[in-house]
Amino acid sequence: MNRFENLRETTISSDKVFDGVLLKVFRDKVELPNGKTSTRELIRHNGAVGVVPVTDEGKVIIERQFRYPFDQVLTEIPAGKLDTASEDHLEAAKRELSEETGYVADEWIDMGVFIPTCAYSSEKIYLYLAKGLHKGQQKLDEDEFLNVEEVPLSELVEQVMAGEITDGKTVAALLKAARILGV
Amino acid sequence: MNRFENLRETTISSDKVFDGVLLKVFRDKVELPNGKTSTRELIRHNGAVGVVPVTDEGKVIIERQFRYPFDQVLTEIPAGKLDTASEDHLEAAKRELSEETGYVADEWIDMGVFIPTCAYSSEKIYLYLAKGLHKGQQKLDEDEFLNVEEVPLSELVEQVMAGEITDGKTVAALLKAARILGV
Repeated sequence: MNRFENLRETTISSDKVFDGVLLKVFRDKVELPNGKTSTRELIRHNGAVGVVPVTDEGKVIIERQFRYPFDQVLTEIPAGKLDTASEDHLEAAKRELSEETGYVADEWIDMGVFIPTCAYSSEKIYLYLAKGLHKGQQKLDEDEFLNVEEVPLSELVEQVMAGEITDGKTVAALLKAARILGV
Repeated sequence: MNRFENLRETTISSDKVFDGVLLKVFRDKVELPNGKTSTRELIRHNGAVGVVPVTDEGKVIIERQFRYPFDQVLTEIPAGKLDTASEDHLEAAKRELSEETGYVADEWIDMGVFIPTCAYSSEKIYLYLAKGLHKGQQKLDEDEFLNVEEVPLSELVEQVMAGEITDGKTVAALLKAARILGV
């Protein structure tokens, strides 16, 4: 028996309760480990990618983007949704980096999966470190607005540790990149 | 003028489109920086707390919890939702640590805010490092199932860097704690 078998929940039924443009919300009926039933409300999501693009000088290409749920501009790494659940993660990361910042990269390092909200969304963000950057042409989606800046990784890590950078994928990806690069 | 004024979106109207037990989903109409209108779908959330409890021997009290959206047991720091949006964050952190693990702590260090999903949820998780641990009595909610273990912080950081620990708040909080403690 799996050592975690005492924790498993089993799906009894699943209903889509909101079918939005961005959010697909489901309410599932589940059987708990003690045999009782309960409900689980969750978002089903195709997944996303995030990139820490580092220049030869140790600077990160970073974005300032308005985030409506917080009525605030956040500092974030370049990131974006997968077009489909089956889209190749690395190809998506290359596309998002190029579209949002105009940069292409020679070297891509897999930094693993980041799960933003394990309790209520199936979203996974596939994180990469990108090196060997070359400047190309930014191609933002229509109605996509963001500012792009270059900031030393060491400075961004200080902002993370001071609680000034709060976006989750950005905090995790910058601290992973810093450990990999010895910053 | 604020340097980010070119990015701001303004609320025109807000509709609650799903009123669940856990999830409160809204569809808002907004005005974009270019004057056009668009919709924003989002979850409004009271917020949560997360704790990295470290023993005098450098071990972290960690949980293994089944997460339905992934049909998988994840390794996570002790965490939980605020009871109300106005609940004191530190008190909530003390409550969650005690209820889920049975531990109380002498020293609490603020590790800042973690935003799990800035695009579609207003949730903020307030992170703490807890030291000077004493064993008390675990008091799980009814229908809450999780296993508690003690694992050296250095080992957990290796698992984070190897991509074996994927829960976002856990990745961010462990890497922050490791930097603070010099691990």
